[in-house]
Amino acid sequence: MFRKLLSFLEEDIPFQDVTTDVLIPEKVVVRAHVIAKQSCVIACIDDIVYFLERLGLHAKKFVRDGDEVEKGTVLLEVVGPARVVLGVERMILNMLMHCSGIATEVRKLVKLVEKVNNKVRIAATRKTLPGLRYFEKKAVLAGGGDAHRYSLSDAILIKDNHIKIVGSVREALEIIKNKASFVHKVEVEASTIEEAIKAADIGVDIIMLDNMKPEEVAKVLEELRRRGLREKVLIEVSGGITPENILEYAKLDVDIISCGYITISSRASDMSLEVVEVIKK
Amino acid sequence: MFRKLLSFLEEDIPFQDVTTDVLIPEKVVVRAHVIAKQSCVIACIDDIVYFLERLGLHAKKFVRDGDEVEKGTVLLEVVGPARVVLGVERMILNMLMHCSGIATEVRKLVKLVEKVNNKVRIAATRKTLPGLRYFEKKAVLAGGGDAHRYSLSDAILIKDNHIKIVGSVREALEIIKNKASFVHKVEVEASTIEEAIKAADIGVDIIMLDNMKPEEVAKVLEELRRRGLREKVLIEVSGGITPENILEYAKLDVDIISCGYITISSRASDMSLEVVEVIKK
Amino acid sequence: MFRKLLSFLEEDIPFQDVTTDVLIPEKVVVRAHVIAKQSCVIACIDDIVYFLERLGLHAKKFVRDGDEVEKGTVLLEVVGPARVVLGVERMILNMLMHCSGIATEVRKLVKLVEKVNNKVRIAATRKTLPGLRYFEKKAVLAGGGDAHRYSLSDAILIKDNHIKIVGSVREALEIIKNKASFVHKVEVEASTIEEAIKAADIGVDIIMLDNMKPEEVAKVLEELRRRGLREKVLIEVSGGITPENILEYAKLDVDIISCGYITISSRASDMSLEVVEVIKK
Amino acid sequence: MFRKLLSFLEEDIPFQDVTTDVLIPEKVVVRAHVIAKQSCVIACIDDIVYFLERLGLHAKKFVRDGDEVEKGTVLLEVVGPARVVLGVERMILNMLMHCSGIATEVRKLVKLVEKVNNKVRIAATRKTLPGLRYFEKKAVLAGGGDAHRYSLSDAILIKDNHIKIVGSVREALEIIKNKASFVHKVEVEASTIEEAIKAADIGVDIIMLDNMKPEEVAKVLEELRRRGLREKVLIEVSGGITPENILEYAKLDVDIISCGYITISSRASDMSLEVVEVIKK
Amino acid sequence: MFRKLLSFLEEDIPFQDVTTDVLIPEKVVVRAHVIAKQSCVIACIDDIVYFLERLGLHAKKFVRDGDEVEKGTVLLEVVGPARVVLGVERMILNMLMHCSGIATEVRKLVKLVEKVNNKVRIAATRKTLPGLRYFEKKAVLAGGGDAHRYSLSDAILIKDNHIKIVGSVREALEIIKNKASFVHKVEVEASTIEEAIKAADIGVDIIMLDNMKPEEVAKVLEELRRRGLREKVLIEVSGGITPENILEYAKLDVDIISCGYITISSRASDMSLEVVEVIKK
Amino acid sequence: MFRKLLSFLEEDIPFQDVTTDVLIPEKVVVRAHVIAKQSCVIACIDDIVYFLERLGLHAKKFVRDGDEVEKGTVLLEVVGPARVVLGVERMILNMLMHCSGIATEVRKLVKLVEKVNNKVRIAATRKTLPGLRYFEKKAVLAGGGDAHRYSLSDAILIKDNHIKIVGSVREALEIIKNKASFVHKVEVEASTIEEAIKAADIGVDIIMLDNMKPEEVAKVLEELRRRGLREKVLIEVSGGITPENILEYAKLDVDIISCGYITISSRASDMSLEVVEVIKK
Repeated sequence: MFRKLLSFLEEDIPFQDVTTDVLIPEKVVVRAHVIAKQSCVIACIDDIVYFLERLGLHAKKFVRDGDEVEKGTVLLEVVGPARVVLGVERMILNMLMHCSGIATEVRKLVKLVEKVNNKVRIAATRKTLPGLRYFEKKAVLAGGGDAHRYSLSDAILIKDNHIKIVGSVREALEIIKNKASFVHKVEVEASTIEEAIKAADIGVDIIMLDNMKPEEVAKVLEELRRRGLREKVLIEVSGGITPENILEYAKLDVDIISCGYITISSRASDMSLEVVEVIKK
Repeated sequence: MFRKLLSFLEEDIPFQDVTTDVLIPEKVVVRAHVIAKQSCVIACIDDIVYFLERLGLHAKKFVRDGDEVEKGTVLLEVVGPARVVLGVERMILNMLMHCSGIATEVRKLVKLVEKVNNKVRIAATRKTLPGLRYFEKKAVLAGGGDAHRYSLSDAILIKDNHIKIVGSVREALEIIKNKASFVHKVEVEASTIEEAIKAADIGVDIIMLDNMKPEEVAKVLEELRRRGLREKVLIEVSGGITPENILEYAKLDVDIISCGYITISSRASDMSLEVVEVIKK
Repeated sequence: MFRKLLSFLEEDIPFQDVTTDVLIPEKVVVRAHVIAKQSCVIACIDDIVYFLERLGLHAKKFVRDGDEVEKGTVLLEVVGPARVVLGVERMILNMLMHCSGIATEVRKLVKLVEKVNNKVRIAATRKTLPGLRYFEKKAVLAGGGDAHRYSLSDAILIKDNHIKIVGSVREALEIIKNKASFVHKVEVEASTIEEAIKAADIGVDIIMLDNMKPEEVAKVLEELRRRGLREKVLIEVSGGITPENILEYAKLDVDIISCGYITISSRASDMSLEVVEVIKK
Repeated sequence: MFRKLLSFLEEDIPFQDVTTDVLIPEKVVVRAHVIAKQSCVIACIDDIVYFLERLGLHAKKFVRDGDEVEKGTVLLEVVGPARVVLGVERMILNMLMHCSGIATEVRKLVKLVEKVNNKVRIAATRKTLPGLRYFEKKAVLAGGGDAHRYSLSDAILIKDNHIKIVGSVREALEIIKNKASFVHKVEVEASTIEEAIKAADIGVDIIMLDNMKPEEVAKVLEELRRRGLREKVLIEVSGGITPENILEYAKLDVDIISCGYITISSRASDMSLEVVEVIKK
Repeated sequence: MFRKLLSFLEEDIPFQDVTTDVLIPEKVVVRAHVIAKQSCVIACIDDIVYFLERLGLHAKKFVRDGDEVEKGTVLLEVVGPARVVLGVERMILNMLMHCSGIATEVRKLVKLVEKVNNKVRIAATRKTLPGLRYFEKKAVLAGGGDAHRYSLSDAILIKDNHIKIVGSVREALEIIKNKASFVHKVEVEASTIEEAIKAADIGVDIIMLDNMKPEEVAKVLEELRRRGLREKVLIEVSGGITPENILEYAKLDVDIISCGYITISSRASDMSLEVVEVIKK
Repeated sequence: MFRKLLSFLEEDIPFQDVTTDVLIPEKVVVRAHVIAKQSCVIACIDDIVYFLERLGLHAKKFVRDGDEVEKGTVLLEVVGPARVVLGVERMILNMLMHCSGIATEVRKLVKLVEKVNNKVRIAATRKTLPGLRYFEKKAVLAGGGDAHRYSLSDAILIKDNHIKIVGSVREALEIIKNKASFVHKVEVEASTIEEAIKAADIGVDIIMLDNMKPEEVAKVLEELRRRGLREKVLIEVSGGITPENILEYAKLDVDIISCGYITISSRASDMSLEVVEVIKK
C-alpha cells in the first residue's frame, strides 16, 4: 500500500510546499510527536510507520493497532528533516484519525453488544469510502469487528437487484448451486420472512435479514428453529442499525450485525502532530 | 478524474464479480434509478455521469450539484448491461452519498450562520480523506462553502509548528515577505491575542484565530478595530467549531469560519440504486 | 481491465512502430480477420473486443467465450486504420492464444473426468502468470473449470508453511475459528491421512489432500466415511495431477481436482491475424 | 521493474491475507528457502532478490542466471517477517518458475543444435505473454538464446500483412530504404523462394523464411549461394519449429532459428518455498 | 517525485540496455563524476541525489541548488554497479542540464534587471514542458525567480478568453468577488490601458499588462499613480519579453516581469558523466 | 499516449480550475482556434486531435505533421464546453509549441545541409526532455530528420565510458560480436582517428566521430577511403554541431549529422488559442 500512501501525499503536495520550503531551510531536523487529542482505539499505525520509514524518516510507534488510548497519549515519534515532517503531517493525521475513528466506533459497538450476547459479531459492509477500503477494513478488524466482504470478487451475496432480475430467490440459488465456485460461501439478502425461510430451506450459508425490525427478525429466527434450520445457517441483520437500536437486535439469537455507517459515516478521532524539539538548525 | 474513479471501481472488483457474473447473463440490459433515501444537497453528480458514460452506460441526471432534494427523489437514471450496472452500483453510491453528505452539512451551516451574519463564509480545511480531496472540496462548493486551500502548493499558511521552528511570528513573516511568491496570499495561525495583533501589524492577508473561545475572538476583533487594522485583514476562526457553537462565532464580525469535521467526519446521505426495468433478458 | 490491456499494448510499442509507420500511410484502412489455426476453446474474447472498440476500431466477434471452434474459424473481424490494426495485432493474438490455450486444456480435463465421475470439478490454483490472473481465471471458467481462490484476500487456506509456524493443524484451526471472518470458507492442506482426519473432525469446509497418491486418497475417503465425516467436507486433491494420471483420482469420490499446470504451463492455441481487404488506400 | 513486481504482488493480495494475518502474529520472523523441485536453468533471480530486499526482507541467492541446477538445490534464502515472506511466496515462485522454465527450454534447444551446427542461434519472438516481455526475454538470454526484437520500436521487420497492403516486397523495400532510420537493421519475412531471392537482391540485412519446410530452406540457401548473395544476408527460419524438427533446420546453413513456443507455450520449472526455521516467535 | 523520475528512467530503458548488459559484467563497480561543461546555475540536484540513492547508488553532491559553477566543476559523485550508473547517466544528465539551463537564464535576467530596479521580480509562467512543471518551477526558484502559478488550481487569473466569454472585465470581476475563494489573490490580464485602470478601480490584487509596449506600460503606471491606485495593485508585465528588451520594462516602476521563454524555450547547460575509476572488476 | 497526455492535463489542473469554474457556467459552449503566431513546421498534431476527441471535444485539424505554415494560420478548431476548452488550452499549446519548435529547427538544418550534400541526414540523440521522448522523436521525423535510437534497448552504441571500463575498442567489439543480438546494428563512438580506423577494420555498422573538428573528420574519411573501408560503414558526426558550423561537416562525405540541441535546447514555436465564438451561453 506504499504506492497508495505516496499518491495521497502527492495529493497534498502536487508541487512545492509554498510555506515550508520558504520558511524552513532544508537542513533543519526536528523531533515530532503524534498525540491523541481524545481517547480512541488505534488503527493502521503500522502502515503509517512503514510509510514514514520508506520516506527516510525515523518513526517509532508507542501503541499498536487495537490499543485503547487516553487523551494526551503520544502515539508516534517522528525524527527527520522538518520539511519532510511538515509535508507528511496532514496526510498521516488524516489517515490515522479516520481509521482510528472507525476502530473506536466498532469497539464501542462490540462492547455494547457483548453485554447482552457474547456470540454476536459486529461486521462492516462494502459502504466504504472509495480508495480507502484496505485501510477501513483493517480499522474494523482493529476495533474487534469482522471485515465482511472485501470486494465483489470474494464471496457470493445475492441482493435484491439480483433477485429482481433473475425472478426469485429459488431460481437464483439454483443457478448459484450449479455454477458458483466451491470456495465461496453463499449469502442471500432476504427482505421478507418467506424469502428467509425459503433460502434456509434450499441451503445457503448465510441469510442477511435486510431492513427488518427486531420483531420480524425474531419471527424469522423462531420459524427457522421450528423447522430445525437455525443451526444450519448464519443469520446476519443489516440496514439502519445504529448504537441506539443495536441492543434490540443483539438481544436476539443473531450471528452477525452489520453496519454501513461505521465506515461511510465515521467520525475521526482527533489527533495532532507537534514538533517537540528542533534537533538541528 | 476518470482514472481515479476507474481505480475506485477496480478496488471493488479486482477480479470477476462472483455473484453477478454467475447469476446474470451478459446480454441482460436494465434500467436503474439512483434514489435519495433522505433529503440532502447533491454533489459530484457530473463526475459520476461522465464516468458512467465513459464506461458505455447511458446516464441521465435529474438534479444538479447544489440542488436540495427530498427523500424519494430520483437523482439519476442508468441504462445498460445489468452486469455493468450492478458492478458500479456500490462505488457510485458510496461516492454520491459521501459527497452529498458533505454538501448537506455545509448547506446546513451556511443557512444557520446567514441568519446572524450575512457576510461570513463557511470554509473547509485540509482535513480531507486521503485520495478524495478533489471530490470533497467540490462538495463543499456545492453546499455553498469555500474550498480554502486545495493543497500545500496553493497558499501560504504559517502554522504553529512553523513558528515553533522559526522562532516567532515576526521572523516568519519577514522571511515570507522577502521570499514568497507574489501570487499567494499570506495567512498566519494565531493562538494568542498578541500574535494576532502582531500579525495584523506586520501586514498579512488573513489571520486564523485557532482554537480561541468566542470571547477571545471578540477581544482580538476589538483590539484590531481600535488600532484601525480590522479592515486590512480577513479574520478566520477555526478549531472545534460545530453546529452547536457556530452561532457564537458567527455573531461576531469574523469573515470566515472553517470546520474540519465537515469533510473528515462527514455523515453520508443515504441513497440506493434500484433496478426498475429489465429491458432485455 | 482496459488500463491493463493498454499497458500491454504500450509494452509492444513504447515509441513508434518503426516498420509500419514508415511503410503505411496514416489514411490506409483495412479489414482483418483473427483466425484459429487449430481447434480450440475460446476465452477472453469480450475483453479484446471491448479494448479494440475503445481504441476506435470496429470489432465484431463471431464466437463466444467457451465455444469450441475448428481450425480455420474466423473468430473476430476488425476494421480500422492499418497502422492501428497492425499495432495491436501481436498483443491481441498473444492474449487470445494464451487464454484460449488455457480454456482448451481445461475443457479437455473436464471431458476426461466426466466419463468416470459426473460430480467432480476441475479447478485452477494461484499458480498463474504474474499480472494475468484476471484473464487466466476467466479462461478457466470458459473451459468449464472452477476459478478457486482469486487471491490471498478471498478465502482461507491453511498451508504447510502455516502449520509449520503455528505448530499443528489443531492449533491453526482453533485460531481460525475464533478470529477469521464468517464470510470465508476454511480450507486446510493435509499431507498425511492423520492431518486430514483431524481437520475433518474439527470441522473445516474443505480439505486439500496435497501430493497424495490415489491409494492414499482412497484411504482418507474411506476413513472419513467410516467416521461419518465424508458428507461434512469437500475433498480437493492437488499436486502433480496431469492428463495422464487424472482418471485415477477422478475415479475416487473426490469433489475437486486442482491443477497448477493449466495456467502456469499452458500451451497457447495458435491463431493469426490476416488483412483480408484494403478498404481505403 | 520494481513497480511491475509490486503490482504483481498487489494482484495476489488486493486487501489483507485473510489466512496469514489471522494465523501468524506480526512479530514472527522466519528463514525460508526457495528450492528447485526439478533440474532447470535459472532466470530472473536478480530481479527477485532486488525486489525482496526493497520489501525489507534479507535475500541471498546461491545461484546465478544461466546456472543449471539439480533437483533439490536451494536457490535463494529469505529471512524476514513471516507475514511478508508468506505474502510474496506465490508471486516470486510463479515468476521464477516461469522464467526458469523458459531458460531451461532454450538451453535444451541450444544444446541440441550445437551438435550439428556451431554457428546457428536460437532466438525468441514477440509471442510473449502480455506484461512479461522484459522477464521472458531475459530468460531467453539466460538460456543462451537471442532476444530478437523487444518491441515494434526497435528493428524493422516487414511481414506478410505489410506486403499485402503495400503491394510487393520490392515496393516495401524501396520505401524502407528511403525513409527508415539508419540505426535499424531491415528484416523481411519471405514465404516463397522468389521473395527471399528478391529481398537478398535488393539488399536487406536479414531474411526470415517463414513456415518453409527444410527442403525449401535448402533451395533458398543454394540459390543465394549460386548468386553470391549468401554472405550478404542473415537467414532466419521461423514457424512451427519444435524440438522434434529443429535438427532438420539446424543441419542447414541457417543463421538463426526462432521459436515462438519457448515463450508463449513455456512449461514452468517446479520450485517451492519452504520455511526452514522460525527465528522469532 | 520518485515515481516520476522512475518513469523517466523506464522511458530510456524499456527492456534491457542492449549495449551495457552485454559489455559489462554485473559485478563491475565504478566511481563516476557529473561535470559541468560550461558555467551555469545548478537546479534540482537534490531530487537527483535522492533518486540515485533510492536506486541503491551512493551519491554525493558538491554543490547546491542556486550555486553558480564554473566549467569543469564536479557537481556530483556516484558510486555503484557500472550497469546501473550507465543506465541512469542520460536521464539524470538530461534533467540536470535542462533544469540548470533554466536556472542559469533566470539568474541572468535577475542580475540584468537588478541594476536598474532592485524591487522588480522575474517570474515564470504556465508555459512549461508537459510533465516537468515541478522541476521547472523549482529551477526558476533556484535561479532567483518567482514560480508564479503552479496550476489552474492555485490562483485566479482572468485572461482574455474569459473576458471574451463573460462580456467585460467588470462583469468578470463582479462574479469573482462574489464567488471565488478568499484564499486566492485575483489577477486580471489587461490588454488596453482602459482595462487596466478599470481593473484597478474595482480592486484586484494584480494586473497583468499583456503584450504592451514599454511606453504603454508607462502610461498605465502614470494613470494609476494619478488616481492614487498604484500602491493598491501589483503590476506584472508579460508577453514577448526577452533579454534584449527586458531593461526597457525593468526601468519602469513595475513589480513583476514574467517570461514564458525561460521554461518553454530553455537552453540546456552542458554537462557530462565520466567514469573516473573502475573500483571492482 | 492518451494516458500520458491525461497526466499532463492533470498536472495543470490538480483540483478545480479556480478561475474558469467560478466565471463560466458549465453549459457554455465555444468554438476556438489554435493559431500559429509565427511561421513553423507542425508536429504531433494528430496526438492532440485524438486526445481532444477522447475528452469529448470536437477537434478538426487544418494542417498535417510536417506542413510548413505561415504566421496567422489556423491549425486546429475545437468545439465544446468552455470549461473543458479553457482547461486544456495551456497543455495542448505547450505540447504543440514545443514539438513544432523542434520540427521547425530540424527542417531548417535539413534545408541548410541539402544545399551542399544531398545524402546526409540530420539525426536526433537521446538528449531529450524526460517523459517527452515519444513526442520529441516524432517531431524530429516531422521535420525530416532521423529519430536515431529511441532508448537503450534498441541499438548498440559503444560509448567512451564503456570503452574506459572494458579496456579498448577492440575488446569491446569482440564481446559484442559474440554476444549481442543479430537484430541490432553496432555503432561505436570514436574520439581519435586511430579508434575510428580500428573500429572500421573490425567491422562495425556505424562509427560516430565524437567532438571532432571538420579537418579531423576529413582525415578519418580519407584514411577509410585509402583502406577501402569507407563503403562498409556509416559515418556519423556528433558533438557541438550547430547551425553555425554544420555546413563545414555537411560538406564532407559523412552520412549522418546528429545534434543534441534540437531536442534538449529547442525553442518553442509561438501559438495561441482564441475563442472565436460563444455558441451556447
